[in-house]
Amino acid sequence: MARERCALALDPANVFADAVGEKHGLQRARLDAMADRLAEAHGLIQGRRGKDVGFMELPRDQETAGRIKRKAAELRNWCANFVVLGIGGSALGNIAVHSALNHPFHNLLPTGHPARRRAPRIFVLDNVDPALMAAFLETVEGELDRTAFNIITKSGSTAETMSQFLFVRDLLRRNGQDPADHIIVTTDPLEKNNVLHAIAEREGYFTLTIPHNVGGRFSVLSAVGLLGAAVGGIDISEMLSGAAAMDRQCSQSDPAANPAAVYAAILHLFYQRGKPITVLMPYSSALRRLSDWYCQLWAESLGKRDGLRANDVFVGPTPVGAAGVTDQHSVMQLFQDGPFDKVVTLIEVEQLLRAGRARDVRICRRKSEEELSYLAGSTFGELLSAELTATRCALRDKQRPNLTLRVPAVSARTLGELFMFFEYAVAFSGCLYGVNAFDQPGVELGKKYTYGLMGREGYEAPEGARRERRGAR
Amino acid sequence: MARERCALALDPANVFADAVGEKHGLQRARLDAMADRLAEAHGLIQGRRGKDVGFMELPRDQETAGRIKRKAAELRNWCANFVVLGIGGSALGNIAVHSALNHPFHNLLPTGHPARRRAPRIFVLDNVDPALMAAFLETVEGELDRTAFNIITKSGSTAETMSQFLFVRDLLRRNGQDPADHIIVTTDPLEKNNVLHAIAEREGYFTLTIPHNVGGRFSVLSAVGLLGAAVGGIDISEMLSGAAAMDRQCSQSDPAANPAAVYAAILHLFYQRGKPITVLMPYSSALRRLSDWYCQLWAESLGKRDGLRANDVFVGPTPVGAAGVTDQHSVMQLFQDGPFDKVVTLIEVEQLLRAGRARDVRICRRKSEEELSYLAGSTFGELLSAELTATRCALRDKQRPNLTLRVPAVSARTLGELFMFFEYAVAFSGCLYGVNAFDQPGVELGKKYTYGLMGREGYEAPEGARRERRGAR
Repeated sequence: MARERCALALDPANVFADAVGEKHGLQRARLDAMADRLAEAHGLIQGRRGKDVGFMELPRDQETAGRIKRKAAELRNWCANFVVLGIGGSALGNIAVHSALNHPFHNLLPTGHPARRRAPRIFVLDNVDPALMAAFLETVEGELDRTAFNIITKSGSTAETMSQFLFVRDLLRRNGQDPADHIIVTTDPLEKNNVLHAIAEREGYFTLTIPHNVGGRFSVLSAVGLLGAAVGGIDISEMLSGAAAMDRQCSQSDPAANPAAVYAAILHLFYQRGKPITVLMPYSSALRRLSDWYCQLWAESLGKRDGLRANDVFVGPTPVGAAGVTDQHSVMQLFQDGPFDKVVTLIEVEQLLRAGRARDVRICRRKSEEELSYLAGSTFGELLSAELTATRCALRDKQRPNLTLRVPAVSARTLGELFMFFEYAVAFSGCLYGVNAFDQPGVELGKKYTYGLMGREGYEAPEGARRERRGAR
Repeated sequence: MARERCALALDPANVFADAVGEKHGLQRARLDAMADRLAEAHGLIQGRRGKDVGFMELPRDQETAGRIKRKAAELRNWCANFVVLGIGGSALGNIAVHSALNHPFHNLLPTGHPARRRAPRIFVLDNVDPALMAAFLETVEGELDRTAFNIITKSGSTAETMSQFLFVRDLLRRNGQDPADHIIVTTDPLEKNNVLHAIAEREGYFTLTIPHNVGGRFSVLSAVGLLGAAVGGIDISEMLSGAAAMDRQCSQSDPAANPAAVYAAILHLFYQRGKPITVLMPYSSALRRLSDWYCQLWAESLGKRDGLRANDVFVGPTPVGAAGVTDQHSVMQLFQDGPFDKVVTLIEVEQLLRAGRARDVRICRRKSEEELSYLAGSTFGELLSAELTATRCALRDKQRPNLTLRVPAVSARTLGELFMFFEYAVAFSGCLYGVNAFDQPGVELGKKYTYGLMGREGYEAPEGARRERRGAR
C-alpha cells in the first residue's frame, strides 16, 4: 500500500469571526485553546486502538480484503442480483458506497448496455415493511437461482435482519435451492448468543467476520461494506488505501495537523454556543446518501444520556443531511434565515466543478434566448461550481458558520478517506462531549418492548402497549 | 366528488404531561388556551382563500384534472420514459407521490412482468450535477424518441431547471426530434419575466398551469404533481378527493375539530418550550420520501428572518425526516437519550400492521431455531406493528413527546389527505410563529450570487467569491 498523502482537505475559514462576525463566529484563540483537550483525546483514542476500538485498524486487514475479492469475483460470475439484508450500520455504509461509486442508475442498466454494467443488480433491504418485502419478491421473481443474499448483523440476533434471514432461507428451500449456495453471512462470532453464526456453521454458509472491537456504525470498511463494494466492481484496495492515509493523518499527535480533531473541536465549540444542529451538505448527487451514514454515526455515537462519570448528561448534536444544489430550493431558506442554531459542512468535489473535465456536460451547444444566454455557453459543472460558491458566500454573509470538505473526485480512495475522517471526528467528539462514542444503550428499551410484544420468552411488553396492540388487531 | 370523511386521524395522547411527565409534557389547559389564536389564524387563512393563497382550492379544479388525465393517457401510449425536470417544490411532491403509490422498484419491472408495469419508467432529476446528467443520458440512450420531459418551474426562470431545459431541447434537436413532441411545460404564466412560458408559446409546447396563488412547495396537488402521478397510473381524482375531504375538515371554525390546527398548536407550544426539532417518522417504506417533501414545506414556510411586523425574528423549527423501523437502528439513539429538544411525529399505516392482510408476508412457514421462534410464527406486518408500538412506548417512557398520524392504508386518497393536512398545518403554524408562511426571501441572496458568478447581466458576484472562483479554475 503506497503511503500517499490524504486528498481530503478541511477548509474552516467561514467559521471564524472575521468571516461570519463576532456574534456567531469563532475566535481563533478559542480553537487554539482546545489543543490540550484534543491532545488528551488523541491519547485516549490511540490508547484504545486495536484493543476495544478497532475501526482505524480495518484498512490493514489485507487478508480479509483478499478473501472478499475472491468471493466477490465468484459472485459476479453467477449472480444476477446481490441483496444486502441488514439494518442501521449493516446497511447505511453499503448504501453510501453503492450510491457514491456505482452508476446512479446501476440497476437499470442492461448488462450489454453502452454504459456496460458488469456487476449484478444491487439491493439493500433495510426495512421489514411487508409491502417492501412483497415488492422485492416480485422484482426478482424467476431469478432466485441467480440471487445471492448477504445477511449482515453484528450481534447475529437483530430481530429485523433475522426475520429477513428466516424468510429468505425458507424461500430458497421452497424453491428447491440450497441456502448454503446463496447466503453469505457477515457477523461477529464473538458476540454472545450469536444465533446466526451458529446456524451458519451448522448449515455451511460462507461467513465473513466483523471484528469484535468494531461497532456497526464503524464497520463500513470491514466485510460489512467491502463485500457489496467488491461485488459492484469497486476497487476496495483503493478505498482501504484512502482510509489508511486518513488514519495516518488523524493519528498524529499534533492536533493542528489532524483534520478530524480540528473538525470535532469546531463543532463542539459551536454546540456549546447554542448551535446543536450540524448539517452535512454534499454538492454531489453521488454523495447524497453518505449523509444517511453520517447521521447514524453522529447521532448514535454522541446522542447520549450517560456521561463518562455515570452522570446524566442528555447531550448530542442533531445531524441533518441536505443535498446541494437541490436543497437550496428547500431547507436552505431555514438555514439562512432561521435561528442561528446550525453549522453547515459543505462537501466540494473539485472534479465536478471544473469545466471541460471528462465528466462535465455542456448545457447547450447552440445560442439560446437572450434571457438565458448566461447559461447557454456554460457547463453543468460551472453552474454547480457557481452555486456552491454562492451558497458558501450567502451563508457567510448571513453570519452562518460553515466549513468545506474538499476532495478531488468521488472515488474509492476519497470515499475511504471520508469514512475514516468522520469516524475519527466522532471519536474525538465523544471525548469532548464526555460520552462513550462506541455504545448505543438508548435503544435497548425499544428492543425489549418489541421482544415483549412479539411474545419472546423472558420479555414483557410495557404498560399500555399490550392494550394498544389488542386494539389494533 | 363524494363528501366522504377524512381517514387520517391525529393521536396526540403522548404529548401530554400524563403520558410523558410534567417536565416535558404539555398541560391540556395550555393547548385549550390556544383556541383564540387558532380561531384568529383560521380567520386569516380562510380570508386569503382563493385570493393570494390557493393551495386549498386545488382539489376543486376538475377541469385541469381532466386535461391532465387525457394528456397522461396519451403519454402512456407512446412513452418509455417520463422525466420530470424540476427542483424543490417542482420535484419533491413528484418524488413523494411516485415513491408512495407506485411499485417500490417501478423502473426495474419489465413491462411484461408478473407485477405488470403498465406505465413508463419515471425519473425525477432534481440536481444539476454533471455526473448525474451524463449518467441519465446513458440510461435512456437509444430511447430518446420515446422519452417525454416535463419541465416544471413556477417562475419559468429557475437557473437549474432552465439549464436542464436548454440541454434537453438541444439534445432532442440534435437527434432529429421536434422538442414540441417531447416537452410538456408546467409553469405559472402570470410570473413576471417567465421565459419558459414565452418559449413554450413560441415553440408550441403543451403547457399546464400552476395557479398564481399557489407556491412551489404547496403545488403538489396542482399540475406539478398530478401529471406525473397520472402518467404512473395513479388515480388523481382519488388523491384530490382525499385532499378535498381534508380541506373540509381543516376549514372548520372549531379549532378542536381541526387536526391541522391542533397539530400546529402542539408543535408551536413545544417550540416555545425548547423543542425546536420536529421529526417526521413514517412506519412505511412507501412514505419514506414524503419526509423530504415535508421538510421543504416546514423549513421554507417557517424558517424566517422577518416577522409579520417587519421585525427581525429569525425563527423556525428544524424538520428532520426519519424512517421506521430503519432508523431505530440509527438516529433513534439520539431521539431517546439525547437532549430534550425534539417532538416526533410517527405515521402509522393500519393496513401494513395487521396480520393476514393481503399485502402481509409471513416471515417463515416452517419451524425455526428455538431462539428465533418468537419470529417464525409471525408476519412482517406483526413485527412492524410491534416495533412501532415499542418505539412509541419507549419514547413515552423516556419522556419524549410524540404524536401519531394514523391512516388506514397508503393510497391515493390518504396521500391527498396527508398533503392537505401538512399544508394546512404549516399555514396555521405561520400565524402562530408570526411569519409569512408563503414566501421564501432568504434564498434570494444565493440566487443573486449565482447569477453574478455565471456572468448574468445586471448581477454582481460577492466579495471573495470571484477570487475563490478564479482559484478553482
